[in-house]
Amino acid sequence: MPTGFSPPRSPLGHAAINPAPPWHYSADVLGVDFWADPEATKALLPEGISPDPRSNGHARIMFYDCQFTAEADEHLDPARYQFCEARVLIDAVWGETRVMFCPFSFVDNDAALARGWTQGLPMKMGQISQTRSFAAPGLASAPIRPDSRFSASASAHGCRLVDAGVTLRQPGTNTDVFLDRPTALSRYLPQLVAGRQNSPALHELTLLLADEVQIVDLWIGEAALSMSHAVGEELHALNPVRIGFGFKFGLSYTVSDLRVLRDFGDERA
Amino acid sequence: MPTGFSPPRSPLGHAAINPAPPWHYSADVLGVDFWADPEATKALLPEGISPDPRSNGHARIMFYDCQFTAEADEHLDPARYQFCEARVLIDAVWGETRVMFCPFSFVDNDAALARGWTQGLPMKMGQISQTRSFAAPGLASAPIRPDSRFSASASAHGCRLVDAGVTLRQPGTNTDVFLDRPTALSRYLPQLVAGRQNSPALHELTLLLADEVQIVDLWIGEAALSMSHAVGEELHALNPVRIGFGFKFGLSYTVSDLRVLRDFGDERA
Amino acid sequence: MPTGFSPPRSPLGHAAINPAPPWHYSADVLGVDFWADPEATKALLPEGISPDPRSNGHARIMFYDCQFTAEADEHLDPARYQFCEARVLIDAVWGETRVMFCPFSFVDNDAALARGWTQGLPMKMGQISQTRSFAAPGLASAPIRPDSRFSASASAHGCRLVDAGVTLRQPGTNTDVFLDRPTALSRYLPQLVAGRQNSPALHELTLLLADEVQIVDLWIGEAALSMSHAVGEELHALNPVRIGFGFKFGLSYTVSDLRVLRDFGDERA
Amino acid sequence: MPTGFSPPRSPLGHAAINPAPPWHYSADVLGVDFWADPEATKALLPEGISPDPRSNGHARIMFYDCQFTAEADEHLDPARYQFCEARVLIDAVWGETRVMFCPFSFVDNDAALARGWTQGLPMKMGQISQTRSFAAPGLASAPIRPDSRFSASASAHGCRLVDAGVTLRQPGTNTDVFLDRPTALSRYLPQLVAGRQNSPALHELTLLLADEVQIVDLWIGEAALSMSHAVGEELHALNPVRIGFGFKFGLSYTVSDLRVLRDFGDERA
Repeated sequence: MPTGFSPPRSPLGHAAINPAPPWHYSADVLGVDFWADPEATKALLPEGISPDPRSNGHARIMFYDCQFTAEADEHLDPARYQFCEARVLIDAVWGETRVMFCPFSFVDNDAALARGWTQGLPMKMGQISQTRSFAAPGLASAPIRPDSRFSASASAHGCRLVDAGVTLRQPGTNTDVFLDRPTALSRYLPQLVAGRQNSPALHELTLLLADEVQIVDLWIGEAALSMSHAVGEELHALNPVRIGFGFKFGLSYTVSDLRVLRDFGDERA
Repeated sequence: MPTGFSPPRSPLGHAAINPAPPWHYSADVLGVDFWADPEATKALLPEGISPDPRSNGHARIMFYDCQFTAEADEHLDPARYQFCEARVLIDAVWGETRVMFCPFSFVDNDAALARGWTQGLPMKMGQISQTRSFAAPGLASAPIRPDSRFSASASAHGCRLVDAGVTLRQPGTNTDVFLDRPTALSRYLPQLVAGRQNSPALHELTLLLADEVQIVDLWIGEAALSMSHAVGEELHALNPVRIGFGFKFGLSYTVSDLRVLRDFGDERA
Repeated sequence: MPTGFSPPRSPLGHAAINPAPPWHYSADVLGVDFWADPEATKALLPEGISPDPRSNGHARIMFYDCQFTAEADEHLDPARYQFCEARVLIDAVWGETRVMFCPFSFVDNDAALARGWTQGLPMKMGQISQTRSFAAPGLASAPIRPDSRFSASASAHGCRLVDAGVTLRQPGTNTDVFLDRPTALSRYLPQLVAGRQNSPALHELTLLLADEVQIVDLWIGEAALSMSHAVGEELHALNPVRIGFGFKFGLSYTVSDLRVLRDFGDERA
Repeated sequence: MPTGFSPPRSPLGHAAINPAPPWHYSADVLGVDFWADPEATKALLPEGISPDPRSNGHARIMFYDCQFTAEADEHLDPARYQFCEARVLIDAVWGETRVMFCPFSFVDNDAALARGWTQGLPMKMGQISQTRSFAAPGLASAPIRPDSRFSASASAHGCRLVDAGVTLRQPGTNTDVFLDRPTALSRYLPQLVAGRQNSPALHELTLLLADEVQIVDLWIGEAALSMSHAVGEELHALNPVRIGFGFKFGLSYTVSDLRVLRDFGDERA
């Protein structure tokens, strides 16, 4: 019988788009804290997730340059497993729990997309880029120091969706601000069977679970952010009404579990 | 509430990676009929699907240059919706029904990948190319006529997986050979919840349903086909032991339904 | 000694980015005839080329889905040689000769870019797409008939540069309008040697020469066209002030020569 | 008049594929020192460059993750200017001067390709990847320390050309080994004018000049390297007969000049 954690399942399990967890990540993150129109963030929340009355409209965009491995040294196949991501998170609550909900995410790698869908991240393919900091000094090196500038962008199908800029000001000490709200997701798989197309094949609220989360080299600074209208996208509805701080840090974590907050399929049954 | 047939669901439903069916396709297809090692094709069949004792080892590879639209003129956004695919099909039976089972498929577009996953096609991203026939005559035009030659290839993550060549000999009349077996699939969504990772979130045998299937301009000829070893793939296990005929045709069809042959999740419950 | 028409030159000459001419092309072309601000088109003309007083501001954009071959069946390696292009042409004169001058062109293939540079086409890399007409009928097929609609777009580095649309109205009979002005180009290779960076290594006015030019299946219709601002580009300076007709045709031709109208290097010497 | 260092020249000079020098680079480099068949390296040397009798067959492959800027903060437009490169260098001599000659280079960015051609680097487009070292610790982070492993690969048009692996052993102290031979190049632009196609439009031996070259964080280790046959390439002729050491370092430098060793065009004239 074919085997493997993910399709395509095959005799040796080598063709699977992803290996079994645990999934280990290490990334360089550039991001911007901002406020969108509270009506726009509210309109993106699925059933079961509510606006956070204390911070509705507050959001964050994070650009990841990311390396992945599971248990077979997948980081040594960078052509297949290295990826970039742009992820948007908006403040919300699930019951009494403060969460961030992810309405949009773009990646440039199919394995990352498949892992994301397994969690409930609504990933589409895009081109994501960020200025990198290189060790060898010079005008192109973008060192980690005050007044150093970084940019990031995301595009899909040849349309620019978002441009961000961060000017570093000082090291940050409070990594909690990035960790104090877990990420809630809508894991939703459409149903193609005629007569059941309004009842998804899978419909859950989930919560990302990550172990061994580490944030290193946090820097805080000033930010710029703009989102552009593109046919086939609604990210521009989150175009900032106010921009907060910019940030840059290193992030690592391991994923080996997922929490299902609510299964709408079971409720229907 | 966010809406849309597919994630990401959004206020207007415009961000969905795919619109609701019906899904309409029109494609140029180049392909090769071949025989792989019968043990290799057998080893790719999932539970519920058996080798066809009359033709075990018989297989087909099809390369599609494909245009897609749903109900909103998506074919007028070719950057987002036009795609290429390489699909492998192997002879099998489901009970008494002769089918072809799809163990591997590669596409170059995320919307196509998402539609495929909704059906059970085990798509990964790749680069797929085929020689096209152009109307304006000349050495580059590859006309549809005897002795005209066409090639196709598929690669993933920078590794060539398959090279095919077809030399047209004469028009074909028997389109039934491409239509007489429906395509069976394994629709399999892994489960990330700890303790349940061996029980997929979704596990079904499905059968592709297509309406208004039309094959036009069928030509038959001689073929060449080779599959290359690549880390992270098992397509090369199907490297031909015998090559049959090559073919080229135009294909259109509409998808608005899916048949679930068997739901392994229900059986477990 | 290494050999080959183009770098990289190698022992067998197989590594060259392009084979020697003759170069044969067959393409599907979608395009729009339009008028830009006459000051904008004038400002794009190099020394030696003047605005056409009869039609200054008149321009054309053409999107090509193109197959290439030289003498070694390069069309049978579509992954390496098939390409798409978006090319802008503006009315001008060279002395008494009416020409079209190409200020901007984008392609998605490095061999096409290298051939273009050899001629003087100022190509950069981009993503170029157009709706295709497929033989198998259906909603996705975009047949060649009255009221059928086609779109095309070009992007570079994730920024959309141009969107075009054409609605076919009737077959066209006058192919001369596409052939009556040859294409003039500025073949310009910068010089990196310090102290000579203002004197290009190569600086010529050239004229595209093509043999066996054939236009087939010409259709004319209505058009839409818009050019978007993008950092690092000036195409948007040509955003239409008036849109003429749209067109679609098949085009084939062979390139085996180039005419140098003027060599600025010789004049300096 | 249109302006700009490079085509396409435009009224504001913003459309040029590259800005004027100085060009600043900062990169992470992973590489392998190796010996190819001395006949294979010799066969790649152009007129004017000879095998190095002391080390004929000795070669180096370097993979760059590279950031570029000129004077306008181009590193803040990473979608347009960040790039990866795979470059092969072989030992040779020019007269009495020991040099390394670059027969093959692949990049994934058109601006990098255009700069390379201005220098004489025979660049083609490819997909180049390398394992990165991330600051946040974990199984995916690939730290810089003994026994840490890194991989790199290059592909073109969907065919894998080279796979490399490096296991770090200890910091290196001798950066001279990477700097003691300048890079010689063949700057060769083909001529399309009929009757002159055997006389290139430009044909020079050049020497790369770089200022402010810095190598930081040098580590040395063991290496693996293999080159694969691919149609349209001759890199595989350099498949190692012996593999030396692997290395990883940070590299920065500035380019604002080029030395022409010999101009074959002047000699013909």
